[in-house]
Amino acid sequence: MRIVIIGGDAAGMSAATRIVAGAPGAELVVLERTRFTSYSACGIPFLVGGEVPKGADGLVARSPQEHRRRGVDVRTLHEATAIDVAERRVEAFDHGNGAAVSFDYDQLLVATGGEPVRPDLPGIDLPFVKGVQTLQDGIDLLEFADRGCRRVVIVGGGYIGLEMAEAFVNRGCTATVLERGAAPLSLIDADLGARVGEALAGRGVELHTTTDVTGFDEGVVHTAQGDHPADLVILGIGVGPRSTLAAEAGIELGVKRAIRVDRRQASTTDGVWAAGDCAESIHMLTDEPVHIALGTVANKQGRVAGTNIAGGDALTPKVLGTAITKVCDFEIALTGLTERAALDAGFDALATTIDSTTHAGYLGTAQPMTVRITSERATGRVLGGQIVGGTGAAMRIDTVVTAITAGMTVTQVSELDLAYAPPFSSVWDPVAIAARTAARST
Amino acid sequence: MRIVIIGGDAAGMSAATRIVAGAPGAELVVLERTRFTSYSACGIPFLVGGEVPKGADGLVARSPQEHRRRGVDVRTLHEATAIDVAERRVEAFDHGNGAAVSFDYDQLLVATGGEPVRPDLPGIDLPFVKGVQTLQDGIDLLEFADRGCRRVVIVGGGYIGLEMAEAFVNRGCTATVLERGAAPLSLIDADLGARVGEALAGRGVELHTTTDVTGFDEGVVHTAQGDHPADLVILGIGVGPRSTLAAEAGIELGVKRAIRVDRRQASTTDGVWAAGDCAESIHMLTDEPVHIALGTVANKQGRVAGTNIAGGDALTPKVLGTAITKVCDFEIALTGLTERAALDAGFDALATTIDSTTHAGYLGTAQPMTVRITSERATGRVLGGQIVGGTGAAMRIDTVVTAITAGMTVTQVSELDLAYAPPFSSVWDPVAIAARTAARST
Repeated sequence: MRIVIIGGDAAGMSAATRIVAGAPGAELVVLERTRFTSYSACGIPFLVGGEVPKGADGLVARSPQEHRRRGVDVRTLHEATAIDVAERRVEAFDHGNGAAVSFDYDQLLVATGGEPVRPDLPGIDLPFVKGVQTLQDGIDLLEFADRGCRRVVIVGGGYIGLEMAEAFVNRGCTATVLERGAAPLSLIDADLGARVGEALAGRGVELHTTTDVTGFDEGVVHTAQGDHPADLVILGIGVGPRSTLAAEAGIELGVKRAIRVDRRQASTTDGVWAAGDCAESIHMLTDEPVHIALGTVANKQGRVAGTNIAGGDALTPKVLGTAITKVCDFEIALTGLTERAALDAGFDALATTIDSTTHAGYLGTAQPMTVRITSERATGRVLGGQIVGGTGAAMRIDTVVTAITAGMTVTQVSELDLAYAPPFSSVWDPVAIAARTAARST
Repeated sequence: MRIVIIGGDAAGMSAATRIVAGAPGAELVVLERTRFTSYSACGIPFLVGGEVPKGADGLVARSPQEHRRRGVDVRTLHEATAIDVAERRVEAFDHGNGAAVSFDYDQLLVATGGEPVRPDLPGIDLPFVKGVQTLQDGIDLLEFADRGCRRVVIVGGGYIGLEMAEAFVNRGCTATVLERGAAPLSLIDADLGARVGEALAGRGVELHTTTDVTGFDEGVVHTAQGDHPADLVILGIGVGPRSTLAAEAGIELGVKRAIRVDRRQASTTDGVWAAGDCAESIHMLTDEPVHIALGTVANKQGRVAGTNIAGGDALTPKVLGTAITKVCDFEIALTGLTERAALDAGFDALATTIDSTTHAGYLGTAQPMTVRITSERATGRVLGGQIVGGTGAAMRIDTVVTAITAGMTVTQVSELDLAYAPPFSSVWDPVAIAARTAARST
């Protein structure tokens, strides 16, 4: 059996590892357009910020050489240019040898990843406007920072945008974030997002909300509210699926142009699978397809795709879209549905918000934190959670993740035997307090 | 209705608050032997260590005056001396007025708390041998530390003992911990406890394991392995129920001399309830009575007792004995059953251990952590968890708590959509990795 994987990062290489284990006789080729495999794209802001002692190599979990030693035929600098699903053939360009090559397959996994959303604005293709996706992008940005930082403008207050803003400030640049909405981090409720804005300001990041970028000229970002000089522009609006190659091959796309897949990661085209940031997921609460571009999901999908391609039978878990980030020591996490999203999905939902502290309030180290729980009014079932606050606040989201997955009610969460000691929590954990408060409303 | 509560800390005052809310017409008296109510006994080591900016008052969540303003008749410095369950009367000594007083009740709540285990050794009653239980104990120790610290010996490597050792070292004392077992923190497996010992040593705490204390003379602790000079001795062996008053009244005791109660917190004596460190709990996994002296449990039991005394109908959740602590920046948490405890309880259990890092290993801030999951061999059901490691490791125990409570299997835990970003976790959370590893063994 000949298997081709397009894309050598999280999903692609997770799949490759499963295939080597599950179908050792298969002929497996991975086409990767960059020089790198299995790297942490999520680590790029920290690389740029100078927090990765080993530099770019530190972000590589497993190099092409290591994969080859384990029996995976990785072709780096190979960019897939076309898929012929009828002939079961992938065309590629080998940038190393400057030659076109082609690969026949019996089974194809498309793991092309995501790409930064590039709004259709004048000047968007100028070279000083950068996306952050591949490790090579990160290396380029690191070199920029090493040359002595200057004025960086980030378009969009998504979490990558905010992490990059902090990274450049850490390197001595000025950083300005231009956000179209009323608050950064549009995935969380605006009132909680506004607190992120305060944290940014305290660290010297300039944030402009309700600001519409209208275009770019060399050295300047134009907005409806005035111009911002910039030596570098980072796109931080969000990540879409890198699905054009698949679409051009006639492979069906779904929500937000992500490749339509079932929970075995099979596309609707025979012999073609997809996994990672280029593919759909199924939401656990709505049962609807969603596009969630996160490393956690990509790894899970890749494993499942690899298991199935190797002849196994695995299903990808449904997702909650759990996300967490930290901006200037202010932590943010969310999972499941906000009240708005739950109402839109047809749930009779309500949100309950409580303010507490990251741990025992009498310790000098305690910081404020806020927990918001979304629950179903009639049943009390937990539907979502958002947590913002100081150090130690956000990882509590995993309690909410586990509770939602188990179908727990807010009353059940309020009674959990959660951990407590003064440096870790209050005697009633903030998540339990929020759940108990919610239980009174249901 | 006349209600008397003996004990004005976590359980007693949680109950009082529910009674005032649920039975506003009741005549309610709380007898508290110290000057303080509703304080964090768990905060005492941090008070002594100088980490509570407001001092002893900072540990008081609600003072007697505040409780009185809310309608609770708190009598401080009132020490209950006898209970007559036939006459429904409590005898007490008012240390403020130096007079005996008595209180008739229709319903009595015994919330006398816990007390440090005092081994029956020569010299145990010498004044330089101290337990740590009441806030007054904490104030006394703080004054000792303020006078210029010297040589402190802690008998027993329980979590209070270790927290006190760190506190005294922070204040410039020398601290020596004498532990009978092979490792401190006997609640966790010895190999994990041994790592706690390493963390202690790195901070200058002297730890002697397999050391049997044989007695005390002024200025010295005798052990079978030699003498240790000491200006102060702290008992850190553990906490037992303060149940002698109840026992003398003929109220039934259960496991480890804790007051026998049902899940409504009713004792087996008509009209008498018990809650907090003096009372039993029911273990969620074994369904057997256990004695768990923790603030979390005390608060839950107090609420339930108060609700029921006020005419409501509440049940205390079963417990997992979740505990967490931090010694010299090394974190330790456990919940549910260790493999040994699970086997002893009749489960066909196995433990699975994985080593990982507190967050993305390529960040300079990542530290080692270890997760051990206990699971049932045939079903894969999660039965317990232990986590040790650097900053951020231990609060993940709440994922395990929630999973056990929901009856999840290790496979289900391995598929959870847990939070990930490089400063918080690995892309596969260590708990999920442990669960996945365990799933392969079941």
